[in-house]
Amino acid sequence: MGPGPSDVPPEVLAALARPTIGHLDPEFLTVLDETQSMLRQVFGTENALTLPISATGSAGMETCFVNLIEPGDAVLICRNGVFGGRMAEVARRCGAEVTLVDAPWGRAIDPDEVARAAKNARFKVLALVHAETSTGVLQDLEPFRAIADSAGAMLLVDAVTSLGGVPVEVDRHGVDAVYSGTQKCLSCPPGLSPVSFSERARDVIAKRTAPVQSWYLDLSLIGQYFGGERVYHHTAPVNMIVALHESLRLVLQEGLPARYARHRAQAAALYEGLEALGLELLVEPDIRLPPLTLVRIPDGVNDVAVRKQLLAQHGLEIGGGLGEFKGKAWRIGLMGASATPRHVALCVEALGQALERM
Amino acid sequence: MGPGPSDVPPEVLAALARPTIGHLDPEFLTVLDETQSMLRQVFGTENALTLPISATGSAGMETCFVNLIEPGDAVLICRNGVFGGRMAEVARRCGAEVTLVDAPWGRAIDPDEVARAAKNARFKVLALVHAETSTGVLQDLEPFRAIADSAGAMLLVDAVTSLGGVPVEVDRHGVDAVYSGTQKCLSCPPGLSPVSFSERARDVIAKRTAPVQSWYLDLSLIGQYFGGERVYHHTAPVNMIVALHESLRLVLQEGLPARYARHRAQAAALYEGLEALGLELLVEPDIRLPPLTLVRIPDGVNDVAVRKQLLAQHGLEIGGGLGEFKGKAWRIGLMGASATPRHVALCVEALGQALERM
Repeated sequence: MGPGPSDVPPEVLAALARPTIGHLDPEFLTVLDETQSMLRQVFGTENALTLPISATGSAGMETCFVNLIEPGDAVLICRNGVFGGRMAEVARRCGAEVTLVDAPWGRAIDPDEVARAAKNARFKVLALVHAETSTGVLQDLEPFRAIADSAGAMLLVDAVTSLGGVPVEVDRHGVDAVYSGTQKCLSCPPGLSPVSFSERARDVIAKRTAPVQSWYLDLSLIGQYFGGERVYHHTAPVNMIVALHESLRLVLQEGLPARYARHRAQAAALYEGLEALGLELLVEPDIRLPPLTLVRIPDGVNDVAVRKQLLAQHGLEIGGGLGEFKGKAWRIGLMGASATPRHVALCVEALGQALERM
Repeated sequence: MGPGPSDVPPEVLAALARPTIGHLDPEFLTVLDETQSMLRQVFGTENALTLPISATGSAGMETCFVNLIEPGDAVLICRNGVFGGRMAEVARRCGAEVTLVDAPWGRAIDPDEVARAAKNARFKVLALVHAETSTGVLQDLEPFRAIADSAGAMLLVDAVTSLGGVPVEVDRHGVDAVYSGTQKCLSCPPGLSPVSFSERARDVIAKRTAPVQSWYLDLSLIGQYFGGERVYHHTAPVNMIVALHESLRLVLQEGLPARYARHRAQAAALYEGLEALGLELLVEPDIRLPPLTLVRIPDGVNDVAVRKQLLAQHGLEIGGGLGEFKGKAWRIGLMGASATPRHVALCVEALGQALERM
């Protein structure tokens, strides 16, 4: 119940352990096609270029920037936690000129501030985090397509902790590039990063003048394997993709609306339980991210000692704080298969016991 | 029995399917430490910076170049197949000035030619492929440390198809940077790239003036997670690392000399069987790579039809040719758990039947 990896259902672990077959085996190519198709459904998109990158979520972030950015490009990045900051770092390593719009940790980005930064300016990309894993803030994406348009920018979104847990609507929100991870609300082990790119983004990539600085993440090469041609680029992580296929099947079997409702309901139960223990939630109710709850560590309570006790006594992992919240907050995940009444009850009871003993 | 992924033993599949635990869980950190330690044994090195990169072998190649190279650096690359060519491509994307020493496909690199290219020149890196997966050639690394020294260069080696199947002796050969994959002779699914860097390479990385262009593959950041500090960089692919741990345990349980002898013995049996069918081996005996045998496709035989029949009738996959060998050669793997008399017999019999029917 940390910020991921989350619990993986037995069906997905069983799929992971199926005998390894070739990355050009017709049976595996069917799995690949179906995986892409199911990813489109979960992302809410018809984007052809929708696929799992063969590395973890941070490599998905890097895939977006290395493919869209050429040296000297102007990028507007919204930062209200670790992952907005990481975007800026990755973009700079691509030679981008980065302009930042900041919001305090635990708060949402103010669209009006972004609109002001975009006014009378041109940016190639406007980037923001849908679900900030370091703060537990859910960002409403609605206003940003219009703001991006005002600056002629593509819209790039981090959906690592939202995909499969809260609605991600790539086409409705006009998102041009999005990345996620498998180990959060999709309930698959870590190791892959689902990404999706709009036609517009594909055009931009096709018209690049500088080569993509990463050969491994170059979508013009990767797309030849995932498209009909099946040109060898690198050896696909076969077992991980078979597992992702199974996890997506389970997500769609539950149904996206039911899955989102379950995350909201279990989060509400967790809030209630934590507040009954006298704990303070760090994020305002209207921007709370159901899959990840930030709790202030009470004064005088030893962060590490509590987490060690939860693990030793209850086999329960919750996350420590990152960045500005290090030592100040716990991060409690209710992601995918972990968003159940049993998990909520275990966490509240275990945390209550641990705090009593401190 | 293609060029990888190879068969994965049931113990490794079972390890892969163990319940996912956190990437900072003490139990997992022990697995990480042991994995690094076992990798050192298999690589034949005491290099502290020895770890699995969280992506496939080609990302291991990229890790070596992005960390060692800065724009404008001169690099000498030996090319006798696809993977030497890929090295050149990756190095150029790092801004390297690349000088190539070529050898024909199916032949080894001539150290004298490399020595001539290195004479009176300075290079930052001399790079070559230990086991060319596109041609089945095993390169003797012995002469290259001295040649690299003559040009003041670090020695960078591709050991994707050699690690765990033929001796890889990083320290004895003075290799400064090496990468491999998990899906060949280690008999683990694809998804990770073991790498190792000498103290000298670490010094070079520490003294860089330009940032590493890939944030995801930046060893100065990754090393803080794998070292004692456990600083979060990205979410480690937990299940894949647990599987690698198990596959390394099996490799060392068999013993490296016994494992190498098994690969040689089964390869010899395969050569005999193939030649008895009247097939021609493409690589001269003294430079044949035991884990991967290249066979010339006889005139008039339909490459794809034969491979389809092997898969449909016998559940047997062999590889097609790559690059110059596309349509001209088959690639037959005897890697790790697949290097057994049963595999050799199945392959020879199935291929014999398929050729008779053509």
